[in-house]
Amino acid sequence: MKISLLGATGSVGVQTLAVVRQHPAAFQIVALAFGSNIQKGAQIIREFSPEIVSVATKDIARQLAHQFPTVTFYHGMAGLIEVATFHKSTMLVNAILGSRGLLPTLRAIESHKTIALANKETLVTAGHLVMDAVKKHNVTLLPVDSEHSAIFQSLQGNSKRAVDSILLTASGGSFRDKTREQLANVTLADALNHPNWAMGPKITIDSATLFNKGLEVIEAHWLFGLPYDKINVTIHRESIIHSCVNYVDGSMIAQMGAPDMRLPIQYALTYPNRLPISYDEPFDLNKIGQLSFEAVDMKRFRALYLSYEAGKAGGSMPTVLNAANEVAVEAFLTKKISFLDIENLVEKAMLAHSIIKNPELETILAIETETRQRVTSWL
Amino acid sequence: MKISLLGATGSVGVQTLAVVRQHPAAFQIVALAFGSNIQKGAQIIREFSPEIVSVATKDIARQLAHQFPTVTFYHGMAGLIEVATFHKSTMLVNAILGSRGLLPTLRAIESHKTIALANKETLVTAGHLVMDAVKKHNVTLLPVDSEHSAIFQSLQGNSKRAVDSILLTASGGSFRDKTREQLANVTLADALNHPNWAMGPKITIDSATLFNKGLEVIEAHWLFGLPYDKINVTIHRESIIHSCVNYVDGSMIAQMGAPDMRLPIQYALTYPNRLPISYDEPFDLNKIGQLSFEAVDMKRFRALYLSYEAGKAGGSMPTVLNAANEVAVEAFLTKKISFLDIENLVEKAMLAHSIIKNPELETILAIETETRQRVTSWL
Repeated sequence: MKISLLGATGSVGVQTLAVVRQHPAAFQIVALAFGSNIQKGAQIIREFSPEIVSVATKDIARQLAHQFPTVTFYHGMAGLIEVATFHKSTMLVNAILGSRGLLPTLRAIESHKTIALANKETLVTAGHLVMDAVKKHNVTLLPVDSEHSAIFQSLQGNSKRAVDSILLTASGGSFRDKTREQLANVTLADALNHPNWAMGPKITIDSATLFNKGLEVIEAHWLFGLPYDKINVTIHRESIIHSCVNYVDGSMIAQMGAPDMRLPIQYALTYPNRLPISYDEPFDLNKIGQLSFEAVDMKRFRALYLSYEAGKAGGSMPTVLNAANEVAVEAFLTKKISFLDIENLVEKAMLAHSIIKNPELETILAIETETRQRVTSWL
Repeated sequence: MKISLLGATGSVGVQTLAVVRQHPAAFQIVALAFGSNIQKGAQIIREFSPEIVSVATKDIARQLAHQFPTVTFYHGMAGLIEVATFHKSTMLVNAILGSRGLLPTLRAIESHKTIALANKETLVTAGHLVMDAVKKHNVTLLPVDSEHSAIFQSLQGNSKRAVDSILLTASGGSFRDKTREQLANVTLADALNHPNWAMGPKITIDSATLFNKGLEVIEAHWLFGLPYDKINVTIHRESIIHSCVNYVDGSMIAQMGAPDMRLPIQYALTYPNRLPISYDEPFDLNKIGQLSFEAVDMKRFRALYLSYEAGKAGGSMPTVLNAANEVAVEAFLTKKISFLDIENLVEKAMLAHSIIKNPELETILAIETETRQRVTSWL
């Protein structure tokens, strides 16, 4: 299969390339995009020989064009769209970070690509537009997030009517054992120390606040077409059960495995089949010994509460939640604000917003910009 | 769907009737069989109005024929076959105990019925004949045992090539916390006190020895076409995960739920769909809190070791294992032998047997009789 990959130098991008490397007969990267990590990007181009590449700026594109004369280079949002819609690819793996992933996804859907979506902001900010487009153009949208892949895997062979609800598991993040009072003084270094998963900094902070789980709840709402009262979250410290589906007959199907992103990425690429993955150690429940589950305290994990509220409010509110969180996390990562300020800023942004129902793409992008400016002004 | 039910007054039979009672528009019992529990049997006939009924003896048949003049009565093995092959039914639910279930199952397969199989002895003693017949007559064989139903549910939407191995969960039975030394003095009453499941006495004793799990391993070998080194067992005290499938990509799909036989029974009846089941309490992982897994010590649980040995030896050996165990458990239930004598007698019977490869039905039945006589002579 010929693949377009957005976000090639990021965490999910690199692991997508690891999957492709293991199965060269099955997969080929024909187009890819990255930002400004030129060294890593050049290495990837050398190894995977894509036909077209998009980068952040015109300068970077020009610089790389000298180095790789047979590759066509693009840049900016137009470049992302060129890669996403490249005529030789049949699948788009969207592993870009943030709401910049939305437009390329929509264009790829219109170009009838199968979409493997790691960019959850796409569904959070414009789930109604994306799912409408998916339906209209009759394309397959495959989840790459480990939780949504788990649910997708657990849904196989069952009709939608048979689904009662879904249960997303959350590790609880770096601060799961801290009280709300203790959260006031946590540091950036502490927050970046995730107990189970090795991921990029933005998603690691989102795991610590549980905004990541909140965004996943909204993503699940769109992906699986379920109301919010049928989407539940449990704290599962071991991150072994990646999520579950409850059926109307009381049966629960769960997907488990090592916390390794290659698995959900590869499943999206091989669906409905599977290919071998080699691990350093085989998965062994006896070695793991115990799996635990705890209800989430919505007062303690206010970010999750806010996410459900944004999701239920609907319209443009999830866009505000997501944009405000992006600015706030960036401010926390550059030590401008404290950890609890992240949720405070998101809540403030939500309170300051008047919901627009069924927003068009332009409206969403305008609300994004407005929210970013507003939250930035509060820093 | 019109159903023939064998073993209507037994534990699985009664729960099958509970499922049918809940969904009268979906299911109808048109033919049934029970043994000599006349009172319970008469109640069932009154409620479900089958067209034909088979019972243990001619006397019982005659007695009930007076009471139910519109029902046709049969008896004995010929009666079981009449019920199993009744022309108006499309599915046979075989919930009979022991190897008497074999012949009716084979005849029902030849009559192109869909088979819902709770009678594991059928596959243990004649897996090769049953699976050959299933293939030849192109019928669907659905597991009813909770573990095999769990595996079957966890296989949905996946190809056989993608399966690496399966993991059967075992509660460990009534004596899971006892050492081998402590097993020497356990009583019948202790053995009948299963920690998680309410089942008939034979299967409860088989759970305590782990012969039940051993028979399930052999059953799984035939049902899912896997070699014995790809069938693993783990001690899972909570009996919440009913079994799992390991895929080649390291993904594990598990089926969970309350320990309630209505679920696997109903799934066999509704497959590939599902219908609601109401429970006294909803299934809640947070309330359960913890799930645990321990490797099985094959020296401690010698019955499981013997079962794997019988399975790997193949041919007529599983028939000997099963028949010897049936006689031994009966002797334990009537307090003729001690708990550890069960596995000792089974091992002795296996050692005394010379394997016959690919035994025909007549050979199997002859070995059954011979084994029963031999073990009985040792009591």
